[in-house]
Amino acid sequence: LQNEDIQMFREEFLKLHPYDQASFFKELDEETRERIYYYLSPEEMATLFENLEMDEGYQDVLAEMNPNYAAEMISKMYVDDAVDVLNELEKDQVVSYLTIMDEEAAQEIKDLLHYEEYTAGSIMTTDFVSISANQTVRSAMYILKKEAPKAETIYYIYVLDDDKRLAGVISLRDLIVNDDDTMISEITNDRIVSVSVGDDQEEVARKIKDYNFLALPVVDFQNHLLGIITVDDVMDVMEEEASDDYSKLAAVSDMDTIDRSPLYAAKKRLPWLIILLYLGMGTASLAARFEETLEKAAILGAFITLIAGMAGNTGTQALAVVVRGIATGDLEKESKLKLILREAGTGLITGTICGILVTITIFIWKGNLFLGILVGISIFCTLIVATIAGAFIPLAMHKFKIDPAVASGPFITTINDIISILIYFSIANMFLSFF
Amino acid sequence: LQNEDIQMFREEFLKLHPYDQASFFKELDEETRERIYYYLSPEEMATLFENLEMDEGYQDVLAEMNPNYAAEMISKMYVDDAVDVLNELEKDQVVSYLTIMDEEAAQEIKDLLHYEEYTAGSIMTTDFVSISANQTVRSAMYILKKEAPKAETIYYIYVLDDDKRLAGVISLRDLIVNDDDTMISEITNDRIVSVSVGDDQEEVARKIKDYNFLALPVVDFQNHLLGIITVDDVMDVMEEEASDDYSKLAAVSDMDTIDRSPLYAAKKRLPWLIILLYLGMGTASLAARFEETLEKAAILGAFITLIAGMAGNTGTQALAVVVRGIATGDLEKESKLKLILREAGTGLITGTICGILVTITIFIWKGNLFLGILVGISIFCTLIVATIAGAFIPLAMHKFKIDPAVASGPFITTINDIISILIYFSIANMFLSFF
Repeated sequence: LQNEDIQMFREEFLKLHPYDQASFFKELDEETRERIYYYLSPEEMATLFENLEMDEGYQDVLAEMNPNYAAEMISKMYVDDAVDVLNELEKDQVVSYLTIMDEEAAQEIKDLLHYEEYTAGSIMTTDFVSISANQTVRSAMYILKKEAPKAETIYYIYVLDDDKRLAGVISLRDLIVNDDDTMISEITNDRIVSVSVGDDQEEVARKIKDYNFLALPVVDFQNHLLGIITVDDVMDVMEEEASDDYSKLAAVSDMDTIDRSPLYAAKKRLPWLIILLYLGMGTASLAARFEETLEKAAILGAFITLIAGMAGNTGTQALAVVVRGIATGDLEKESKLKLILREAGTGLITGTICGILVTITIFIWKGNLFLGILVGISIFCTLIVATIAGAFIPLAMHKFKIDPAVASGPFITTINDIISILIYFSIANMFLSFF
Repeated sequence: LQNEDIQMFREEFLKLHPYDQASFFKELDEETRERIYYYLSPEEMATLFENLEMDEGYQDVLAEMNPNYAAEMISKMYVDDAVDVLNELEKDQVVSYLTIMDEEAAQEIKDLLHYEEYTAGSIMTTDFVSISANQTVRSAMYILKKEAPKAETIYYIYVLDDDKRLAGVISLRDLIVNDDDTMISEITNDRIVSVSVGDDQEEVARKIKDYNFLALPVVDFQNHLLGIITVDDVMDVMEEEASDDYSKLAAVSDMDTIDRSPLYAAKKRLPWLIILLYLGMGTASLAARFEETLEKAAILGAFITLIAGMAGNTGTQALAVVVRGIATGDLEKESKLKLILREAGTGLITGTICGILVTITIFIWKGNLFLGILVGISIFCTLIVATIAGAFIPLAMHKFKIDPAVASGPFITTINDIISILIYFSIANMFLSFF
């Protein structure tokens, strides 16, 4: 790249896997990137771009290119990847690229651009292979060879009826193992699994994972085949959703990754922290009402964090199990009441054991049985209530169609802090005469 | 199934996708399951079993079958799935099934059984298609047709040299689009991406996801091809790892799902809760040392949960970002010192803003400027230290090869409780003369 030896660079570079090309490209500075645009054709650049995973910054990279080069590159990309890139741009920029683009490619992209984010429609591609049932394996193979360069997968071929409705699917494996003269209709699998264009992308990921498919057809409500979703796109969805759930449990916006500046990270975390700060002040104001109690027995203050902490821990556990249950689809099979009862039972068991342990430990440690019993009973009550709350809050949010993962760990923890302090001081007031 | 009409049941049942067969099978009671074994051949049962996802319980199901039937079924499964099932059984049971099994199948299984859990070797299959480079597309297609029924994927064909070393890969797509007389060596891709048999399964998942492969070859240190890992197995790994990380962040063992009994759930959560209980008692004993301070100004007790809570929140945020960074492999590109400095910077910004907010709010609410400043400064210091701790602890664990996800949210939270109480009361003692 230093010697400007185009021929040698092209030879070496194009031998690399597109993912490695993209990783290399990402590390370059602007000047060197501009030289790359000069060295590579829009088609070659399109392959690289399909493998370029950036959260943002497509805008800047595209701005470095000549608009005609950029438009042609986008038109040569697989249409679902092109849509992913365009979705990151300003509206007027998208329009300008679509205008200078080849008309057919622009139309394909426009058809996909209007699907809502996170639906099957938004991640599908229209680059699939479809045939009619009324032909032999030989002629199907002929079509396949012709369509192969443009199709995103040629391993599943979709069979359409005369009204262009999805009638079945056939794998390339089936084509290979059957005789050339076999009719397609004889070997088509008509028990087809498909998703609707408006279905959630998580639903798509689950189906592909459960059925071990390489691709899944997307249909409209009349069963017309609109597109397909391939397994590689689904893996990106799975990773995204997993990151998302994980980050929410910890109350971080998922855009905060380790390569960001402190200012960026602070901006992403502060909204959560400030909400939690004011919730925490609510807890403090509640505790302040018991100032009198604290004045009479200052030692009680020492156990506030223990009790609030245990409430937070058990609540987070219950929350995680329920949110995972929702994410994996297990929840649909269970009744919600049964789940709450189960958590109540779990809280009863953990509460009893922890309560007894803490009573004994404090008695041995401080020699104060009443203090031990007070803290023990508080732990017992707190664990039961906090476990139920940890399960109930995400379930209620799910019921009201709020993403339950938003009820993050710290949020549940703070709610449970409040509950636990109320319980603790109410019980403490009853015991006060013993101190 | 009720009418015992074998013919009709078989016809309907075998039309179902194996995953649907398995879901149906899972819902049955023992008696009905036993009838199914009678209705289906071991081969048909093998296909169902490959799609049966159970955490445990294989043992019970297999015990219902005639041992010969079970052994034959296992021998007909894809070898990687067979190994997954056998790994759940007692050692002597495995041996007894392997003994009555067809010898060739038993050998294949034995070869795979000895790989360590979570390595590439443990999830690979030996049912792949390999050819030598020195032949035409036509003869390769002939081999492919012959091997198709047994191979787990026929979409990638691996090219071996004369020493059986992996020399390249060719996709079925390449075979289809090229002329029958083309030599394999001309169209083989020799820039091959592979994994070592001892590599971590997460590494395998990352590579398949990044490169958008359908399968990845597994080699030994001399580059001999030992097996392949297909994308469907990798999706299971991704789901498993994501569940695992998520559960650990919340301090639940990931085997705890919503369909378990309260006793089971309590058993899985109690170890964590008890550890956290004693850590919490440590915090309490620390706070108890400041009993005198609390006696002089009981109002200070009201703010303990606020400060400890904020320390926990910010620590969990930093933890989550770092653990995600380790899981996605981003961390390797960054220097650890830079990451700690970044978190320190983030803590400085969030600490300053939250500190100022809390000072103003308490001043307005309580009319006590000193209390406001005390809590404000404590929040400021706590957020900085707790943010750094949240990043440092998982990094240190990663360094010492402990899975950093074990440093779960509640664990970090409890550590940060201790830090924050120390900071709070130290500062409080300095301010004490103002109360």
